[in-house]
Amino acid sequence: MNTEKQSENTNTFSEQTKRLEQQINFIREMDKEKFIGRQTYLSDGKRKENDAEHAWHLALMTFLLSEYANEPIDVLKTMVMVLFHDVVEIDAGDTYAYDEEGKKTQAQREQKAAKRLYGLLPEDQGAKLKAIWEEFEAKNTPESRFAHTMDNLQPVILNAATNGKAWKEHGVYLSQFMGRQKDTPKGSEVLWQYEWEKLVEPFLKNGTIKDDSLRE
Amino acid sequence: MNTEKQSENTNTFSEQTKRLEQQINFIREMDKEKFIGRQTYLSDGKRKENDAEHAWHLALMTFLLSEYANEPIDVLKTMVMVLFHDVVEIDAGDTYAYDEEGKKTQAQREQKAAKRLYGLLPEDQGAKLKAIWEEFEAKNTPESRFAHTMDNLQPVILNAATNGKAWKEHGVYLSQFMGRQKDTPKGSEVLWQYEWEKLVEPFLKNGTIKDDSLRE
Repeated sequence: MNTEKQSENTNTFSEQTKRLEQQINFIREMDKEKFIGRQTYLSDGKRKENDAEHAWHLALMTFLLSEYANEPIDVLKTMVMVLFHDVVEIDAGDTYAYDEEGKKTQAQREQKAAKRLYGLLPEDQGAKLKAIWEEFEAKNTPESRFAHTMDNLQPVILNAATNGKAWKEHGVYLSQFMGRQKDTPKGSEVLWQYEWEKLVEPFLKNGTIKDDSLRE
Repeated sequence: MNTEKQSENTNTFSEQTKRLEQQINFIREMDKEKFIGRQTYLSDGKRKENDAEHAWHLALMTFLLSEYANEPIDVLKTMVMVLFHDVVEIDAGDTYAYDEEGKKTQAQREQKAAKRLYGLLPEDQGAKLKAIWEEFEAKNTPESRFAHTMDNLQPVILNAATNGKAWKEHGVYLSQFMGRQKDTPKGSEVLWQYEWEKLVEPFLKNGTIKDDSLRE
């Protein structure tokens, strides 16, 4: 009996070690998020941010701004969603919001990446995180709608802080901007109203964002 | 009556706008976390990480590893704790674990910073976050103990991934390392055991971490 018990314990221990090994490997792999550049300048305008910095910012914004969600949200789930939402870019790369060519192959590249990356984790955790990422992509729950509001608002806060530096460099038109922001009010009307009035309209009025709404 | 009602609504609207303005200002100020350098190299060994990247990593680790906490923890609270735990460094700077001079004035500098930074937020949120930071510093709850386990384990994962690069540069002794890690088992015995066996002992055996335990 003792031998059996011991063998069972050893098994449990070695299974736990294997599980932990998978988790630590995944955590190490996640470090690569810090190498993935985005198009948004940090608030000092000196360099552009990376995916990890961006996700950190979204997570703290989610905690601070959840009171403005159109519908009640599960804050923990939404924070997990934004922390991991760009992880597929480790394999698939960042596709800039206005890169129409890159966007054609984006979904396929990201699905493949999700399979490999979440496959590194123990099955239960990998499946859970992959499902949360798919929920984010589908945008059909209160949490995923609010996560997209965070994802859209954060670069606008930074763009406004740098006097529209990235908008100027990319020569962004209002129609492009509005296309990019079409889901922002779906997560929070209040935040979209604030964003529009305080962070966007001034840059439309001074010509930084080019108004093409009156074009024939 | 109508006029009174309208005035009340206007008041509520302007109060909400003021609250949101404070929150967005704080979120913009938080961007400076991305400018605060740490001593740990990223897993590719090319550059050192910053506070925002570090905090993002701790938050996702908290989600993935909470099952190993010695005591049950509130995962959301612990994630918020690690997301914000270094925010005071925006004013007070990062104090390296082995900088004995800097550590003498650290507590005072960080208290002043917490007062200013959390003072930017609406009172209820500022008080809540300041209390969570003080709980982190006091290390006397399951959440704060586990947060410190994350904070101690994460740089060790990266140091091991870079073949001990930062340890070599700083010429770290085992006694210093153990002093820095003294709270790690308090949050999770399992994670400390894994860390020691898989990520530390090999670097002690090959002399990267200098063994001073046998000195007279």
